[in-house]
Amino acid sequence: MRKLVVALSGLTGEEKKSIQEMAERYGLNPLFFERPEDALEEVRDAEIVFGQGTLLTERAEHLSWCCTPFAGVEPYLRPGAFASPDAILTNSSGAYGVTISEHIVMVTLEMMRREGEYREIVAGKGWRRDLPIRSIHGSRVLLFGTGDIGRETAKRLRAFSPKWIRGVNRSGRATEGIDSTATMDAMDQLLPETDLLIMSLPSTAETKRVMNADRLALLPEGAFLVNVGRGSALDEEALCALLRSGRLGGAALDVFDTEPLPEHSPLWSCPRLHITPHVAGNMTLSFTRAQIVRQFLENLDRYGRGEELLHVVDRKRGY
Amino acid sequence: MRKLVVALSGLTGEEKKSIQEMAERYGLNPLFFERPEDALEEVRDAEIVFGQGTLLTERAEHLSWCCTPFAGVEPYLRPGAFASPDAILTNSSGAYGVTISEHIVMVTLEMMRREGEYREIVAGKGWRRDLPIRSIHGSRVLLFGTGDIGRETAKRLRAFSPKWIRGVNRSGRATEGIDSTATMDAMDQLLPETDLLIMSLPSTAETKRVMNADRLALLPEGAFLVNVGRGSALDEEALCALLRSGRLGGAALDVFDTEPLPEHSPLWSCPRLHITPHVAGNMTLSFTRAQIVRQFLENLDRYGRGEELLHVVDRKRGY
Repeated sequence: MRKLVVALSGLTGEEKKSIQEMAERYGLNPLFFERPEDALEEVRDAEIVFGQGTLLTERAEHLSWCCTPFAGVEPYLRPGAFASPDAILTNSSGAYGVTISEHIVMVTLEMMRREGEYREIVAGKGWRRDLPIRSIHGSRVLLFGTGDIGRETAKRLRAFSPKWIRGVNRSGRATEGIDSTATMDAMDQLLPETDLLIMSLPSTAETKRVMNADRLALLPEGAFLVNVGRGSALDEEALCALLRSGRLGGAALDVFDTEPLPEHSPLWSCPRLHITPHVAGNMTLSFTRAQIVRQFLENLDRYGRGEELLHVVDRKRGY
Repeated sequence: MRKLVVALSGLTGEEKKSIQEMAERYGLNPLFFERPEDALEEVRDAEIVFGQGTLLTERAEHLSWCCTPFAGVEPYLRPGAFASPDAILTNSSGAYGVTISEHIVMVTLEMMRREGEYREIVAGKGWRRDLPIRSIHGSRVLLFGTGDIGRETAKRLRAFSPKWIRGVNRSGRATEGIDSTATMDAMDQLLPETDLLIMSLPSTAETKRVMNADRLALLPEGAFLVNVGRGSALDEEALCALLRSGRLGGAALDVFDTEPLPEHSPLWSCPRLHITPHVAGNMTLSFTRAQIVRQFLENLDRYGRGEELLHVVDRKRGY
């Protein structure tokens, strides 16, 4: 019997049933596990894996396809991650745009409206109302990364009437809802005209420390920065120095070089820095989980019919 | 010489110049003061006042028109507020939609994404990622009040793909960007189908305690409430009891029965309550101040040409 190993916690009964039905339609036998650790034996002769981490792909000697519920695929890129090196890898990158774009709008407004300071005032039963605030209205926005997250963010930010929304991506290709796009080469021209920089880059060789000290210094006084992609894209130390100098309006980081953020990291006490513990795009929103399952089901249908899969990861490119 | 008294702090040189030019075009002499207290003598024979509070209208015996930079007009409704009872009162209600709607989206996302709890976790250098969160996506929204604030809020929330955006207003009139509108009579039918209730009501006899204990109890489990209008519209004690019971997802209040919130108010320690010190719509955003001046200038032009003014307050109706 051809095996589909599903190793994902928290699936609803209805979601399991949908997977079961689709699998059986194509002669596949689905086995459900809460954790990858529980599936180590059964995965050896699995044809398909729908689950997180490389514990399973390392052992699946007859694997055709692995679908990860996450967007990031770094662990799958290292040697030995696949016992079946020709297996297709798809990710769930399209499922996180809704939740991550809501996070981006939230932290942007929190920084612009000085919400952290107002929370402190209120915690001390204070009543101060005079902190000068900023607005998305009229702001110049640059999306560094224009995938699903960038597009969903642009759609939401547009409703706040920014001055413009520009984008930077690998090829410079035009993107729906973004006024103009450019390649990385244009960054140094674009950054001085950016009030709000939003980074949603995957972790690749090309994106490593792409926001280095020189580029960070190009942002105008009072600019805001949000990073929800990968910590490796940013020089944390340089950002912290810039925040300490008072030059930037603020930064909101959800991703870091090392996670969890080490106890002795200077970032914990960096002023104007809003830290969230990598929560922008996890699966705590039921919509996200449902969308991951919907995308997997669509791909399972395609797989069954011998069609090309969506969200295929180019393992050389790294995303 | 016909006098225009401007008593408003923080006007830019350019803003003063624009007022000066427009005033002179119509034979008016503008006098600028930082505070109403400084204009008490000059206001006696002023034809127009552009400034806050009733200190000036109480003394202006020859007043034709007062423009308040605020949206709320409660102080102007009491007997004796005008030495010239026939003077027209206009407010600046159209100037606050941008900043207040940004506040509403921010506090909504903060409640739905449990930002207060995550801030506490991070303050203790913790790294927890598993709090179940909610989303505007798919939520059923009810706007209680569909003026400038309601419309600007609807425009922004729409981009987050809520299930619907309904509105309640005095006449039930249709409002651009809102799926359906009803009068207050429909509230009891609408509240049980509301995940997010946004209140932006003026303070009038009709709106006093309109969200009483009975109505609050009609909200479904896990619903969220935002009030940016006036504290008098809501039964604070009943809301607090409901929040303590765990029935509501959260509430965000920017306005209160008594402001500043008294030191011994039980609201300070009410769980799931996000308090802000009446900052949603003050003038700390430069765009707001600029918009107030733009609206005043448009009205000054109309006044000079003998045309009907915009944003005229019906002092009987109370807004």
